[in-house]
Amino acid sequence: MSYLIDGLQYSNWSEGIFRQLRSGGVDAVHVTLVYHENFRETVARIECWNRWFERWPDLIFQGFAAEDLALARATGRTAVFFGAQNPSCIEDDIGLVQVLHRLGLRFMQLSYNNQSLLATGCYEAEDTGLTRMGREVVTEMNRVGMVVDMSHSSERSTLAALEHSTRPIAVTHANPAAWHPARRNKSDAVIGALAETGGMLGFSLYPHHLRGGSACEMADFCGMIARTAERHGTDFLGIGTDLCQDQPDSVVEWMRTGRWTKSVDFGEGSREAPGFPDMPGWFRDNRDLGNLRGGLQAVGFSGEEVTAIMGGNWARFFATSFGTAGLDEVERAAE
Amino acid sequence: MSYLIDGLQYSNWSEGIFRQLRSGGVDAVHVTLVYHENFRETVARIECWNRWFERWPDLIFQGFAAEDLALARATGRTAVFFGAQNPSCIEDDIGLVQVLHRLGLRFMQLSYNNQSLLATGCYEAEDTGLTRMGREVVTEMNRVGMVVDMSHSSERSTLAALEHSTRPIAVTHANPAAWHPARRNKSDAVIGALAETGGMLGFSLYPHHLRGGSACEMADFCGMIARTAERHGTDFLGIGTDLCQDQPDSVVEWMRTGRWTKSVDFGEGSREAPGFPDMPGWFRDNRDLGNLRGGLQAVGFSGEEVTAIMGGNWARFFATSFGTAGLDEVERAAE
Repeated sequence: MSYLIDGLQYSNWSEGIFRQLRSGGVDAVHVTLVYHENFRETVARIECWNRWFERWPDLIFQGFAAEDLALARATGRTAVFFGAQNPSCIEDDIGLVQVLHRLGLRFMQLSYNNQSLLATGCYEAEDTGLTRMGREVVTEMNRVGMVVDMSHSSERSTLAALEHSTRPIAVTHANPAAWHPARRNKSDAVIGALAETGGMLGFSLYPHHLRGGSACEMADFCGMIARTAERHGTDFLGIGTDLCQDQPDSVVEWMRTGRWTKSVDFGEGSREAPGFPDMPGWFRDNRDLGNLRGGLQAVGFSGEEVTAIMGGNWARFFATSFGTAGLDEVERAAE
Repeated sequence: MSYLIDGLQYSNWSEGIFRQLRSGGVDAVHVTLVYHENFRETVARIECWNRWFERWPDLIFQGFAAEDLALARATGRTAVFFGAQNPSCIEDDIGLVQVLHRLGLRFMQLSYNNQSLLATGCYEAEDTGLTRMGREVVTEMNRVGMVVDMSHSSERSTLAALEHSTRPIAVTHANPAAWHPARRNKSDAVIGALAETGGMLGFSLYPHHLRGGSACEMADFCGMIARTAERHGTDFLGIGTDLCQDQPDSVVEWMRTGRWTKSVDFGEGSREAPGFPDMPGWFRDNRDLGNLRGGLQAVGFSGEEVTAIMGGNWARFFATSFGTAGLDEVERAAE
């Protein structure tokens, strides 16, 4: 099945965007629920999504398991899988991992730019690797079937998570630092370890992660994917657009500063350009996602490889990642 | 299938009690998670249960759907279904109904002795019936498949819930007031309305609900059940022991006073006897539950009727109550 799956979005959701997901034929999307929100605030976000699922049942539904991809395709809807970009949602309570998994949280980043209770973010000067709680939480995430996402984490912490996790992990939205040396992009060591362990790398279209920023051409982006595949194989590659459509700039401020500072932190931006950057002209919204197929073919990928990168690899990863450790989704459903 | 189901317990859970559930052959039990606890405290109780489920997987597991009764029987374990005795767990937020349903809450009382945001408790002087929010929450509980339980609610509020709810409701643990006129026991009008609407009445073994208190004989208790059946039929009858095994008296204080008063409220107790009363000698714990079968036969119930009262009626009620409105559990599972 040639699924079209986006490994990360954080849009200002609306009926219009849900209809664009359908126009674009997007079968599934991993959406960011929260950044710095605590548990109760995270539940409030879930409540908000529940109202959207109830209001637009013909467009979207909540995804819990890999089988929901087939359901999405069969019913012409988009399956929405929840994730968190920071572990604030579990506070200091490991028991909330299972509770949030039950509520559908399928991805959680161990840190977001800063040091967290679990691991170090990519903007810290010192990198602790996994903390004591971090190791315990990764083990618990492995047990219940919540994906460890290291997109905003630092090098040593990411390698430590790759080492400690007994199940494959993901970088849902980043690019190779060798192509564009942004702090958020990943080293060849990290990318190689993801490939070797059955993990996933979702290529990002967020301009700060692109060589040339908003002006980056699709051919350059797809060429970068081709070089990554030549070096490490194609099986672990997907897309994670990091689309933040229709968000006001106050949201990127929240993402960067949460409640951890009273000052301004520009993150990947700058004093001169503090807001959301413009997406590349060839990727305005979900209706353009499928156009990447052509771009990937143009740089030499086979039809089978294009299908894998555009969703097939995510689909396989979902199937082995979202269930209880030791059981794949099919066995779990048959329990 | 002759299931053995208890419609309500709130014990001080331990491996010993879980082993007694198995010795007694109890297939399923509705357990009280919380009384006056807020949402976050309720989640902490769920986390506690999750640890018990993980620690004793050979004895207990969490029940979500009626199919879990067959799984319990097939695997020799007890299915534990969650309930709340007061709506404090949803705070003032109707969205928490669906969130808690997803986490497994299958029963919620609309009030506990006092006025709540939803309805009036059986100890208030004035009975408002359902409040504005109460009507909305009952509709939402109907939608998601959470049972309205009016065990501790007052007469008018209970009749209003029976009228407003589009799905059958329950009184999980109480007896007829005509047999023992305790404030917690129910009028013939309420019992008749439960019978007519496909609801459920779980007969309580809590001594304050028994004629003669702790000295009540099994024959008198079963005779009361027989008279209820003669008047209203047998299809809506079950057991809800209200077993509060091994609880310290501080817990009955919490149940009665929560955080709503700085004074002492003795509820069904008194200054002279403020603590938990002794259970009848013929019902010490879950190992004795099945003995009620003999008591029911002795007062003239047929084998089929005994099977229905001891669990068959609850099983049928579970099958039509825990799923999304308009779909029974089997249809929902096939979705």
